[in-house]
Amino acid sequence: MRPSGRANDEMRQVKFTRNYTMHAEGSVLVEFGNTKVLCTATIDERTPPWLRGKGQGWVTAEYGMLPRSTNSRMGREAARGKQGGRTMEIQRLIGRSLRAIVNLEALGERQIIVDCDVIQADGGTRTASISGAYVALCDAVQTLLDSKKIKRDPLMGQLASVSVGIYKGNPVLDLDYAEDSNAETDMNVVMNNAGHFIEVQGTAEGHAYSRDEMNAMLDLAEKGINEIIEIQDETLK
Amino acid sequence: MRPSGRANDEMRQVKFTRNYTMHAEGSVLVEFGNTKVLCTATIDERTPPWLRGKGQGWVTAEYGMLPRSTNSRMGREAARGKQGGRTMEIQRLIGRSLRAIVNLEALGERQIIVDCDVIQADGGTRTASISGAYVALCDAVQTLLDSKKIKRDPLMGQLASVSVGIYKGNPVLDLDYAEDSNAETDMNVVMNNAGHFIEVQGTAEGHAYSRDEMNAMLDLAEKGINEIIEIQDETLK
Amino acid sequence: MRPSGRANDEMRQVKFTRNYTMHAEGSVLVEFGNTKVLCTATIDERTPPWLRGKGQGWVTAEYGMLPRSTNSRMGREAARGKQGGRTMEIQRLIGRSLRAIVNLEALGERQIIVDCDVIQADGGTRTASISGAYVALCDAVQTLLDSKKIKRDPLMGQLASVSVGIYKGNPVLDLDYAEDSNAETDMNVVMNNAGHFIEVQGTAEGHAYSRDEMNAMLDLAEKGINEIIEIQDETLK
Amino acid sequence: MRPSGRANDEMRQVKFTRNYTMHAEGSVLVEFGNTKVLCTATIDERTPPWLRGKGQGWVTAEYGMLPRSTNSRMGREAARGKQGGRTMEIQRLIGRSLRAIVNLEALGERQIIVDCDVIQADGGTRTASISGAYVALCDAVQTLLDSKKIKRDPLMGQLASVSVGIYKGNPVLDLDYAEDSNAETDMNVVMNNAGHFIEVQGTAEGHAYSRDEMNAMLDLAEKGINEIIEIQDETLK
Amino acid sequence: MRPSGRANDEMRQVKFTRNYTMHAEGSVLVEFGNTKVLCTATIDERTPPWLRGKGQGWVTAEYGMLPRSTNSRMGREAARGKQGGRTMEIQRLIGRSLRAIVNLEALGERQIIVDCDVIQADGGTRTASISGAYVALCDAVQTLLDSKKIKRDPLMGQLASVSVGIYKGNPVLDLDYAEDSNAETDMNVVMNNAGHFIEVQGTAEGHAYSRDEMNAMLDLAEKGINEIIEIQDETLK
Amino acid sequence: MRPSGRANDEMRQVKFTRNYTMHAEGSVLVEFGNTKVLCTATIDERTPPWLRGKGQGWVTAEYGMLPRSTNSRMGREAARGKQGGRTMEIQRLIGRSLRAIVNLEALGERQIIVDCDVIQADGGTRTASISGAYVALCDAVQTLLDSKKIKRDPLMGQLASVSVGIYKGNPVLDLDYAEDSNAETDMNVVMNNAGHFIEVQGTAEGHAYSRDEMNAMLDLAEKGINEIIEIQDETLK
Repeated sequence: MRPSGRANDEMRQVKFTRNYTMHAEGSVLVEFGNTKVLCTATIDERTPPWLRGKGQGWVTAEYGMLPRSTNSRMGREAARGKQGGRTMEIQRLIGRSLRAIVNLEALGERQIIVDCDVIQADGGTRTASISGAYVALCDAVQTLLDSKKIKRDPLMGQLASVSVGIYKGNPVLDLDYAEDSNAETDMNVVMNNAGHFIEVQGTAEGHAYSRDEMNAMLDLAEKGINEIIEIQDETLK
Repeated sequence: MRPSGRANDEMRQVKFTRNYTMHAEGSVLVEFGNTKVLCTATIDERTPPWLRGKGQGWVTAEYGMLPRSTNSRMGREAARGKQGGRTMEIQRLIGRSLRAIVNLEALGERQIIVDCDVIQADGGTRTASISGAYVALCDAVQTLLDSKKIKRDPLMGQLASVSVGIYKGNPVLDLDYAEDSNAETDMNVVMNNAGHFIEVQGTAEGHAYSRDEMNAMLDLAEKGINEIIEIQDETLK
Repeated sequence: MRPSGRANDEMRQVKFTRNYTMHAEGSVLVEFGNTKVLCTATIDERTPPWLRGKGQGWVTAEYGMLPRSTNSRMGREAARGKQGGRTMEIQRLIGRSLRAIVNLEALGERQIIVDCDVIQADGGTRTASISGAYVALCDAVQTLLDSKKIKRDPLMGQLASVSVGIYKGNPVLDLDYAEDSNAETDMNVVMNNAGHFIEVQGTAEGHAYSRDEMNAMLDLAEKGINEIIEIQDETLK
Repeated sequence: MRPSGRANDEMRQVKFTRNYTMHAEGSVLVEFGNTKVLCTATIDERTPPWLRGKGQGWVTAEYGMLPRSTNSRMGREAARGKQGGRTMEIQRLIGRSLRAIVNLEALGERQIIVDCDVIQADGGTRTASISGAYVALCDAVQTLLDSKKIKRDPLMGQLASVSVGIYKGNPVLDLDYAEDSNAETDMNVVMNNAGHFIEVQGTAEGHAYSRDEMNAMLDLAEKGINEIIEIQDETLK
Repeated sequence: MRPSGRANDEMRQVKFTRNYTMHAEGSVLVEFGNTKVLCTATIDERTPPWLRGKGQGWVTAEYGMLPRSTNSRMGREAARGKQGGRTMEIQRLIGRSLRAIVNLEALGERQIIVDCDVIQADGGTRTASISGAYVALCDAVQTLLDSKKIKRDPLMGQLASVSVGIYKGNPVLDLDYAEDSNAETDMNVVMNNAGHFIEVQGTAEGHAYSRDEMNAMLDLAEKGINEIIEIQDETLK
Repeated sequence: MRPSGRANDEMRQVKFTRNYTMHAEGSVLVEFGNTKVLCTATIDERTPPWLRGKGQGWVTAEYGMLPRSTNSRMGREAARGKQGGRTMEIQRLIGRSLRAIVNLEALGERQIIVDCDVIQADGGTRTASISGAYVALCDAVQTLLDSKKIKRDPLMGQLASVSVGIYKGNPVLDLDYAEDSNAETDMNVVMNNAGHFIEVQGTAEGHAYSRDEMNAMLDLAEKGINEIIEIQDETLK
């Protein structure tokens, strides 16, 4: 039995609220149950220095948690003077995943920066971030298309992400914090709408997992991601 | 005529939403029109090192802006590796103001940290932060009283803050961004519910201001702060 | 009775020594009693990057304290690897105040950097810094005029600064350390020679102050600043 | 055809040289073809502060690349003043993997720090690091057993790691730099000697990968890891 | 002919002003011609953490230059966020030199920190700093003796320092900036009052120097240091 | 008697291994007994910003120690976020020494960066680094000559370095760690093949040294350096 009473293959309620704030070209509040992340996509007409004149654009991401998004307060990274390893790992993952579905030449010599800031955390902040970042990215890209700055849609696909794991011996979908902090294995999966993998990151926390367990987790992930993609579609309609 | 069409002595709509997030002992979304700041108050049972064993507590604040809370994206301070001068100035102001109404001995050897994170900025983020921080502080203090960790209420008063300025030659109340970025003079005022000053910070941006102008601005500030205090009272009832 | 025996409206001895060091375009040792600050003004023929090609110059300030300028040694900010919040706050105040009397277009595309380094501290280092910075700025500007690099005097006024406060219930002028560390209220005031305000920063340390107290403090500040301006005039003659 | 002429399921030559340097409790040079990493294991009799008094030990890792281990020189992280995101990601992966096979209670209240420093890079530095770190860890643990500081062997298993990927449409084992920089998909796999997964990190660089491709890669990884484990056994005999 | 018209073996005017500032236990302005350094010695009743409980004290030094002590303004190290290599090198040299004449056991478990801050630079700031630091150290030690905190004088000797070099082919004593920036060789020498060497740091800037040149420079250094020691004695009488 | 059993004027075995790693233009492992340093020389076709367009090149060095190159593990400087004073001092010494034998105009507008990374430390890492850096520099320069990027050999001489000291009252050559940590005096000497000094850095650790002791040490250094130069010649033949 899961702490939330959900079935093993049951997602939390997933919700995307577009235009959540007023300044960004894309601004989406994504909710996976109690996990709430604000994803804003900014169009920056300059590419990073190392890409200047290369005839292509860039998509990158930054991630942060508000100090009290978590149960006990985390020190503010700006005050500590550096981003921690976990933050770097997550924002690299988000950026890499998004780039996997963007035609950077079609984007032109500009950059889209997606900021994922966790307002409230209850497990799965990175998978919610990726899923919400996609929606914010769509809105920012639409801005470019509407303003005729680009002619071709640079998006080559759709993506979403979910976590799966082994909790008390059972494969479960979309872990919340109560499960995540006790899971034996935790796997974050990013897939596109063709059902292919963009990222798989599986970590044995307590015990190493077998190929069978891996397959069971990947099946759950596929189910969850399909559901998220449907909700994204609904949201973007 | 003000860009927003408001009268010179008219506040934007002020709103406090308590329990905005679920983890913090106090969690308040404060809105001054389009300016939205999330204020969370955390009870930390350890005082800062330099206060250990002194028989008193501490109240401090941290301030941050989400990168795309503003019209053009600001670099993330955590990524740049330090907090800027403006951030430091504001968080010092918030903390100092709050301490002015707290009996630190009555608080006991613990610390309350108030985080003010700007979700959306449209001028007046520091005054909204102070006004919201007060409400979050009240909720955190109530938690301490309810749990019997302290016996006496350490709050010695109530406070709120508003900005005033000279815009196109006229004293105006509660400047939004359109006014703030063009004001000749900008003054942030923090007052308590006895009508006394806790902080006054007035800056001539364009032209130095006379004693008469100062008095006119202080009159407006007093009016605005009284209105905010009423809304706080309503909220906390 | 004030610790120094001064009357409530009595300044400490104020003294400016020009050409205190030999390299800077303006170099002034300012003394407010035992508080001694070396203010040097440097002409830098490059503006900050964000002003390039805008047809105007810039004036900025940096502030520092020698580690043993104070009664107990303060850690060196260069060794700690960052400037503290108080330092940032003060140097922003000095720079902003100076810019209020400079016509940046008339200055041309160059920068004047004023460094205020506290040699010995006894309260009021920021107000002494501002008052001395003005004199150093005058000397640097004169260098530009003498060398025909600029034709018009970019200085649009004169300024000075003093602290006032409530000490043991009485409004007092120009607080020294003994008073400053025990004052109920502390206010730093910057005014120009037209008697108008450039900055007012008042902080309730112990008790909130009334409008009457504020007015009494502002009266004292005006008196003190007039006296400093006279001494500046004498010095610059 | 692979650039190196290897078969798709063929490892580079793997070699472990123990006691490579003289000071560390474990010191191993690991070579995967031209990739050479020095792994040293240090016994530190203090645990990290957050584990003090918890009755358990800790295993952690740090990773670095000599500036000219790569084809074009990389800036020295110590000179730049911080470790990059890739470094953090890798050292977190190494530490987490090692902890998956260590009984931290049996280790006692001490820490083993494994430093993996890349002397020469030709792809696969993180998987070589993990494989070599295991051998260095064994030597350090043996030191503790020999000196009777611990009684029970805290190692609960053996591990090794290898990269697999899709190169020119084919699944290949143990990518070198020529392949790695052109692979469509890159996956790092850590497994234990029971054939179970400790970490799987698969990234689509060019195109998303199907479940079939994933399975083919995992098969190759299993084959490679078994071979590395045999060589580790040989080395440690 | 030297730019200053001095004879090759002629020092600039050396002057020590004790009690230059009011807070430090030792406070000395040292002047070598136009080079002016403020040396303050602080008694800190805590030793550095790594010396706690070892039954001995410590002497250390920090060095800094005011931004406009030099002909063109140097960026403030506190603003840049770190001390440069030259600063570190010099402050390590000052501290090491002072420790060579201090009996650290006799000092007891406390620390003396000597801050050397360059007010005006004209070559030889490090040698002036060392020579002045000795005088400040004497005053701080006397404070300890007077207050009976220590019984034995921990000073085991006296030291001074001077620079020598090869300028236009000739060995010269006490280089000023005009010489220093054009010298072929520059050597900083620290000696004690027994005529023995504490530090010798000789650097070929333009051409490598012979043993004969080295001997000529050391002769000059010995002469200069003897003169400084006499002036120190005079000052301390 | 020296701990190693060597005669007072006897060097440890000195060995240079060229082409130690495969990427760098010069790559040399230098061994002074158990001290092993990897010196790589990188040709960078850009000069530092402050030299652009000046018609000359630059030679610089960076130094680092692997965390467990020493007997007890040293914290990684990249993790601590800055290079220590000793590191800065050493890398400045290496760079300065190398520049003393390079005609920077003949090098053209490019930079050679020599990285000296200590693999195993047993005293004398900086002198081994300098001696090895020279060999790596030769190889990098030869690359430039071979590729016709430069026409004239920019090397104006040869250099090597050794440490000397007073150990138990006797002048000794090439101190290992056992001696170095107990020496009364430690001197690092850099000389060219004409027998002239490029750097002399002598430090009294325990007792100040006389002119006679200095001369004895310099004699030893000259002998050692001549031997190293011969081995360099042998290596480079």
